[in-house]
Amino acid sequence: MDFDLNEEQQAFRDTAREFAAGELAPHAAEWDAECIFPKEAIAKAGELGFCGLYAPESIGGLGLSRLDATVVFEELAAVDPSTTAFITIHNMATWMIGTWGTEPVKARWGEVLSSGQKLASYCLTEPGSGSDAASLKTSATREGDSYVLTGSKMFISGGGDTDILVVMARTGGPGAGGVSAFAVPADTPGITYGRKEDKMGWNSQPTRAISFDRATIPADHLLGAEGEGFKIAMRGLDGGRINIATCSVGAAQGALDAAQRYMGERKQFNKPLSEFQALQFKLADMATELVAARQMVRLAAVKLDAKSPDATTYCAMAKRFATDVGFKVCNEALQIHGGYGYIREYPLERLVRDTRVHQILEGTNEIMRVIIARQLLSGKSDIR
Amino acid sequence: MDFDLNEEQQAFRDTAREFAAGELAPHAAEWDAECIFPKEAIAKAGELGFCGLYAPESIGGLGLSRLDATVVFEELAAVDPSTTAFITIHNMATWMIGTWGTEPVKARWGEVLSSGQKLASYCLTEPGSGSDAASLKTSATREGDSYVLTGSKMFISGGGDTDILVVMARTGGPGAGGVSAFAVPADTPGITYGRKEDKMGWNSQPTRAISFDRATIPADHLLGAEGEGFKIAMRGLDGGRINIATCSVGAAQGALDAAQRYMGERKQFNKPLSEFQALQFKLADMATELVAARQMVRLAAVKLDAKSPDATTYCAMAKRFATDVGFKVCNEALQIHGGYGYIREYPLERLVRDTRVHQILEGTNEIMRVIIARQLLSGKSDIR
Amino acid sequence: MDFDLNEEQQAFRDTAREFAAGELAPHAAEWDAECIFPKEAIAKAGELGFCGLYAPESIGGLGLSRLDATVVFEELAAVDPSTTAFITIHNMATWMIGTWGTEPVKARWGEVLSSGQKLASYCLTEPGSGSDAASLKTSATREGDSYVLTGSKMFISGGGDTDILVVMARTGGPGAGGVSAFAVPADTPGITYGRKEDKMGWNSQPTRAISFDRATIPADHLLGAEGEGFKIAMRGLDGGRINIATCSVGAAQGALDAAQRYMGERKQFNKPLSEFQALQFKLADMATELVAARQMVRLAAVKLDAKSPDATTYCAMAKRFATDVGFKVCNEALQIHGGYGYIREYPLERLVRDTRVHQILEGTNEIMRVIIARQLLSGKSDIR
Amino acid sequence: MDFDLNEEQQAFRDTAREFAAGELAPHAAEWDAECIFPKEAIAKAGELGFCGLYAPESIGGLGLSRLDATVVFEELAAVDPSTTAFITIHNMATWMIGTWGTEPVKARWGEVLSSGQKLASYCLTEPGSGSDAASLKTSATREGDSYVLTGSKMFISGGGDTDILVVMARTGGPGAGGVSAFAVPADTPGITYGRKEDKMGWNSQPTRAISFDRATIPADHLLGAEGEGFKIAMRGLDGGRINIATCSVGAAQGALDAAQRYMGERKQFNKPLSEFQALQFKLADMATELVAARQMVRLAAVKLDAKSPDATTYCAMAKRFATDVGFKVCNEALQIHGGYGYIREYPLERLVRDTRVHQILEGTNEIMRVIIARQLLSGKSDIR
Repeated sequence: MDFDLNEEQQAFRDTAREFAAGELAPHAAEWDAECIFPKEAIAKAGELGFCGLYAPESIGGLGLSRLDATVVFEELAAVDPSTTAFITIHNMATWMIGTWGTEPVKARWGEVLSSGQKLASYCLTEPGSGSDAASLKTSATREGDSYVLTGSKMFISGGGDTDILVVMARTGGPGAGGVSAFAVPADTPGITYGRKEDKMGWNSQPTRAISFDRATIPADHLLGAEGEGFKIAMRGLDGGRINIATCSVGAAQGALDAAQRYMGERKQFNKPLSEFQALQFKLADMATELVAARQMVRLAAVKLDAKSPDATTYCAMAKRFATDVGFKVCNEALQIHGGYGYIREYPLERLVRDTRVHQILEGTNEIMRVIIARQLLSGKSDIR
Repeated sequence: MDFDLNEEQQAFRDTAREFAAGELAPHAAEWDAECIFPKEAIAKAGELGFCGLYAPESIGGLGLSRLDATVVFEELAAVDPSTTAFITIHNMATWMIGTWGTEPVKARWGEVLSSGQKLASYCLTEPGSGSDAASLKTSATREGDSYVLTGSKMFISGGGDTDILVVMARTGGPGAGGVSAFAVPADTPGITYGRKEDKMGWNSQPTRAISFDRATIPADHLLGAEGEGFKIAMRGLDGGRINIATCSVGAAQGALDAAQRYMGERKQFNKPLSEFQALQFKLADMATELVAARQMVRLAAVKLDAKSPDATTYCAMAKRFATDVGFKVCNEALQIHGGYGYIREYPLERLVRDTRVHQILEGTNEIMRVIIARQLLSGKSDIR
Repeated sequence: MDFDLNEEQQAFRDTAREFAAGELAPHAAEWDAECIFPKEAIAKAGELGFCGLYAPESIGGLGLSRLDATVVFEELAAVDPSTTAFITIHNMATWMIGTWGTEPVKARWGEVLSSGQKLASYCLTEPGSGSDAASLKTSATREGDSYVLTGSKMFISGGGDTDILVVMARTGGPGAGGVSAFAVPADTPGITYGRKEDKMGWNSQPTRAISFDRATIPADHLLGAEGEGFKIAMRGLDGGRINIATCSVGAAQGALDAAQRYMGERKQFNKPLSEFQALQFKLADMATELVAARQMVRLAAVKLDAKSPDATTYCAMAKRFATDVGFKVCNEALQIHGGYGYIREYPLERLVRDTRVHQILEGTNEIMRVIIARQLLSGKSDIR
Repeated sequence: MDFDLNEEQQAFRDTAREFAAGELAPHAAEWDAECIFPKEAIAKAGELGFCGLYAPESIGGLGLSRLDATVVFEELAAVDPSTTAFITIHNMATWMIGTWGTEPVKARWGEVLSSGQKLASYCLTEPGSGSDAASLKTSATREGDSYVLTGSKMFISGGGDTDILVVMARTGGPGAGGVSAFAVPADTPGITYGRKEDKMGWNSQPTRAISFDRATIPADHLLGAEGEGFKIAMRGLDGGRINIATCSVGAAQGALDAAQRYMGERKQFNKPLSEFQALQFKLADMATELVAARQMVRLAAVKLDAKSPDATTYCAMAKRFATDVGFKVCNEALQIHGGYGYIREYPLERLVRDTRVHQILEGTNEIMRVIIARQLLSGKSDIR
C-alpha cells in the first residue's frame, strides 16, 4: 500500500494551491456576494489544464486519472468550493464529449472546452425527476439528419452562461434503456433559459432551468450510441460524486485551517482559544474526520480509475461520507469563530452555504445510502 | 403537573399565529433578500402588545410571564425567526427600561417602546469581549449631571436604525462589579454607527458596530444603581436565552410543517416521499426532538418566572438544547426538500441561515456548557 | 403550566429513594453477577405499594396515575434498572388483571399481585412475531368451560419464576381483531419453560421461552371480551413504554451522579477530572439531555393519564428519546470512569448493559419511529 | 497510491481467516462466558507466526510490518476481539524484548514468546496513573547486579497467567526521563497478583493488579538503556493504538456481516428485514464508516512503518476514529438483531462488550484528542 502523493501529483497540488491563492481567494467573497460567474478566472484555470484534467489528450485534455484530478480540485475548493464545483462539472461534460463525441463534435468543441475558453453545462435533472433520473421525460426525436429536443431541465449549473450543454434525453421507451446523450450548442434555437435561481450558496455559478422547444441539432451531436445515455450518465455520476466529495474535502480543509489560525489569535478570558480544551477536542475531531474523508475520496478515485466493479459502491460511500464531513467541519469552524463566523467578512459562513448543497446533488446522500445498501445486500459488493 | 397552555395562552397563540400568517409570512423572504428592517410590521406587532409582552403594565407593557411570551414568540418565529428575534431583543430592552429606568426615562420611553412606535437595541458585546462580557471596556464617567460614554460595541441588533440603546458600560473598577447600565438615546451626539454587517442570515435586522466618543447623557439615564449593570445584564441574559431558544423552536416547527407538507406532495420513483421509510424516520426524529426542545424552553421559562435559584442552569440548558435542535431540524427539513430546499423560493434555506446564529449569540453554546457544568459541579444545581 | 412534583409525589419519591438505597443498592451488583431474581426484595417493594402502583384500589392497588408511578420507578431504577424494569412489568400485568379480570380472577390474584407476594409475567412476543405483534400465532380455543392454549412465547421476563402469566393468544381470525388476553396460572399443566436465557444484562430477572401445549384454563380467565386482546395489549404498551423510558431516565440519573462524584475525586495530571473542560462539557450535555428525557416521559405520562388521543404518539416519542438518552448517558458515564468504568466494582458497566435492552423492547426504537411518523403523516397527531 | 493488499498480505489474510474460523469462532462465546484464557489456541496461533508478527526474525519473529500485522489481527478480531487483543499485546511485548532486550534475555525468551509457547504481559498503568503514564511510581533500584522493583500495576492483561512481564519502572527522577523498561519473569519472588477483575468484556483474557515488593531481577533484564523506558513505551503505544484500532475494525466487520446475514433471513411484517429502508440505510452507514475506519488504521500503520514524524498523530487519529466506529457498528448490529442481539446465543452483545474497552485503553479517546490537538496546534503535524 502507498498513501502518498507521487511527485507529479505534488507538483499539481502546488500549482493548484498557488493558482487558488492568486486567482480565486482574493475574489471568492465578492463573486459570492455579487453572484458573479468568473469566466475569466475559469479560463485562467484552463490555461493550466484544469478545465480538461481527465479529458482525453486527443482533444487537448491532460488525460490524467480521477485521483490526480482530486489533488487539483481539493486545492481550489479550499478557497472557493462554488467556482471549483462548476469547474468539476465542466470537466465532466468535457470528458463526456471527448470520450463519446463524434469527430466533428470533438473537433469543434474539444480544444475550446479543454482550455476553458468555452464552457459546458450538464443537463440531467428535470422538475419531476430528481433522484429518479431514469424517469426523465425530455424527448429527442430523430428527424432526418437531426435530433429534435423538447422538454425541460432544472437546476442546471452554468445554465444560460455556458456554450454547450450535455443533455440526457429520451430517444426510446421508458426507463434507463431509452435515454441518449447529446451535445447541444447553448444557442440552438428553441432553447430558452429560466431566471437565475436565488440560492443559499453556489452563487458564483448561475443556476437556471432550461426549456427545449423543438431545439434541433445535427444527428452527429449524439454522444455514444442511442440508448447509451444512461450508461454515460452513470459513469459520469461516479466521477461526479468523487468530484463533489473532493470539493467538500477541500472546503473543510480551508475551514479547518481558518479555525486553527483563529484559535491561535483570538483571546477570551485572557487566553487564546487554543488553550480551551473543549475547542481543542473539537479541532481534533474535525481534523480526524477530514483525514478519513480524504482517504475515502482517494480510495474511491483509485477504484474508479481501476474500473473496479465495486467503484460505484465506493464512490457512493465517498460522496456520502465526505460531503457530510465537509459540511460538519465547515459548520464547526464557523462555530469556533463565534459571531465573526456568521458575518461575510470571514469565509466560514460562505463555506457552510456552499458545502450544504453537496449533500444534495449528484444524488442526495439518501440516494447514496440506497445505492450502498443495494450493492451490499445483493452480494455484489463485499467491503471486506 | 400540567403541560397544557391555559386559555389565555391559547388565545395569545392564536392571535400570534394569525398575525404571523398575515403580516410576516408574505414578506419574510423579501425582507431577508433585500435586507429590509420591517419597522412597520414591528409596530403592528406592537399594537397587539408584542413589543412589551413582559414589560411592566406601568409603562404600557402587558406584564405577562416569560412563559406567556414564549407562546407568542414561537408562533412569530415559525415564519420569520429573524424579525422575531429582533422583537425579542426589543422586548428585553423595553423590560429593562421599564424595570430599572427612572421615572423621567420611563415617562419618555416606556409607552413608545411598549407599543413598538420606537425601537430599542441592546449593547453588551464589544470587539474584545464576546463570551467574556464582564471584561467590557466601554467607559461611562460621571461629569456633573451627566454620564459621558466612550468606547465601542459590536454586533448590535438594530444598531443604527433604532431609537434608544441599552448600554452596558464601566463606571467602576475591573470585573463584573464595575459595570452599569444606561438608556442612551440613539441620536446622542458622539455616537457613530459602523457599516451594516453582511451576515449569513438575520437579514431583516441590521447589525452594526457602535462607537461612543464622549457621548453625553443625563445622569438619570442610569438604569438601576451604579455597579448593578452586570446583574441586570445577567437577568436579561436568562430571559434572552429563553427568547432565542423559543425562536429556534418556532423556526423548527415551521420547517417541520413544511417538510411534512412536502413529503405528502412530492413524488419520487412514483410514490410520495411520505412513503419512504428513511424519510419517515427522519421526520419522526425531528418531531421528537422538537417536542423535547419546546419542553425544555417552557420548563426554563417557568423556572425563571418562579425566580428559582436554578433558573440560570435551566435557561442555559434550554438555550443549548433548543438552538441545537432548531438548527438541526431546519437543516434536515432542507435536506428533505432536496434541491428545492437550497433555493430561496422555499423558506428552508432561510430558516437554516437564521437559526444558525442562535447557537452563537446570547452566549455561545460552548458558554452554555460552561455555565451548566459550573452549576452542577459546584453543587448549586441539582437536576434531580 | 406546572412542572413540579406535588407533595404526595415528593413523598413517594423520598420513600422510593430510601427503599432503593436500603434494599436494592447493596445487592444489585450481586443479583446481576449471580443472576438472582430477588423475589424477597420485590415483595418488600410490594409492602410499600410499588407492585400495584396504578392497579385499581379494588384489588389492593394504590390507584395512582402513570405520572405518579414514574416518580417511584425512576428512583428505583437509579440503582437497579433490571429489577425495577421487572417490577414495572409486574405492575402492568397486575393492572391488566385488575382492570379487565373477572371477579373470580381478581379475587384470587388481585391482592397477592398488588402486594408483590405473587408475581406476574406478560406474554406477548413470539419467536416469529417481534415487532409485528398482531401476527401472533399462539391459539386459544374455547372448549366447553375452558380455553385451551397452544403455541409458544419468547423473551418472557420472569418466565419460569412467576405465578401468573398474562397471555395474548388468538381466538379468532388473523390480525389484531382475533387476539384475546388471558390470565394463565403459571403452573397450568401443558406449560413448559425453556432454559434461562444468557443475556447481556437484565440479569436479575430470568428470561425464558414458554411453550403451551393444550394448556387448559377456566373460561373466566379471559381478560375483557374475546377479540379485545390487542386493544388491551396496546393500552398496556403505551404505559409499558413510559415505564421502560422511566427506567432509562432513572439509570441515567444514577450514572450521572456517579460520574459527577468521580470527577470530583479522581485526579489525573495533578488535578481533579472536574477541572478538565472537555469532561465538564460532557457532563453538561449528559445533564441537559437527561432533563429533556425526563420531561418527555412526564409529558407522555400526563397525556396517557388524561387519555389524550395523542397519548400513543407521545409515549412512543418518550420511549424513543429517553431510552436513547439513557443508554448514551450511562455509556458516557462509563467513559468518564476510564478503566474503572469497565469493571464490575463500579456500577457503570452494569447500567450500560441493563439500559441497552430498553432500546429494543416494548417495541424497538425503530418501531417507535414508525408509530410517530404514521401519526404525524396521517394528520392524527399535531405536535404543535 | 495503492490501496490494495499485496499477494503476501492476501495470503496472510486467508490464513488468518481460516484460523479464526477453525480455532477461535467455535469457542469464543464459551471463553467469554466461562472467563477462559485460551492458551492452547494462542499457542496454535503462534505456530502460524501470529505471536511474533513484527518481532525481529532473529528471535523467531516474522519481522513483518505493522500494516501486515493489521491484516492478520483484523481477521482474528472479527470472531474474537478479546483473545485477539491479548495476542496483540503479547506481540507488542515480544517485539519490545526482541528489539531492546539483551542477548541473554533474547536467547531465553525470544523463541518461546514468538512461537506463543510462553506469553507476555505489558505493565504500564498504575492505580494513580492512568492517562498520565509519565507519573508512574513503581521504582526499580539498582543493587549490585540486580534491579529491585517495588510498586504496583493495574489492569494488566494476562496478569497472573503469563510468563514474563514487560514493566515500566522509575530508575531516575520524576517525569518521563526517569522511566526504564524491564523484562521481569512472572514468577520472580516478590511479585503477587491481585484477584481476577470482573469485567464487562474481554473475558477471555484475565486482568489483574500486580504488586512488586522488592522483586529482584538480574541487571541484564533492563530493556534498552536506563531512562529509555518512556520512549520505548511511547513507541509501543503508537503500535498498540493501531493494534487496538484494528481489533475494533475486525469486530465491526464481524458484526456487520452478521447483521447483513440476519437482515436477509429474519422476516417481520411478512418481509425480510433487508427490505426495510431504514435498516438498509443503517447498514449502508455502518459499512461506510467501517471502510473509513479501516483506511485510517492502514494509513496510520503505513506512517508508523515509514517512521514518519507524523506517525503519532495518525496513530491517535486511527485509534480514536476506529474504536468509536467499532463500538458503534457492533452496537447498531445488535440493534438490528432486536431481542436476539441481546442474548448470548448470538455474538453481537459480546462484540459490543469487548469493543467497549477499546475506547478506553491504550490512552482513552479523550487522551487521543489531546494528542491530536497538541500536534496540530504546535504546528508539528500538518494533515494537509
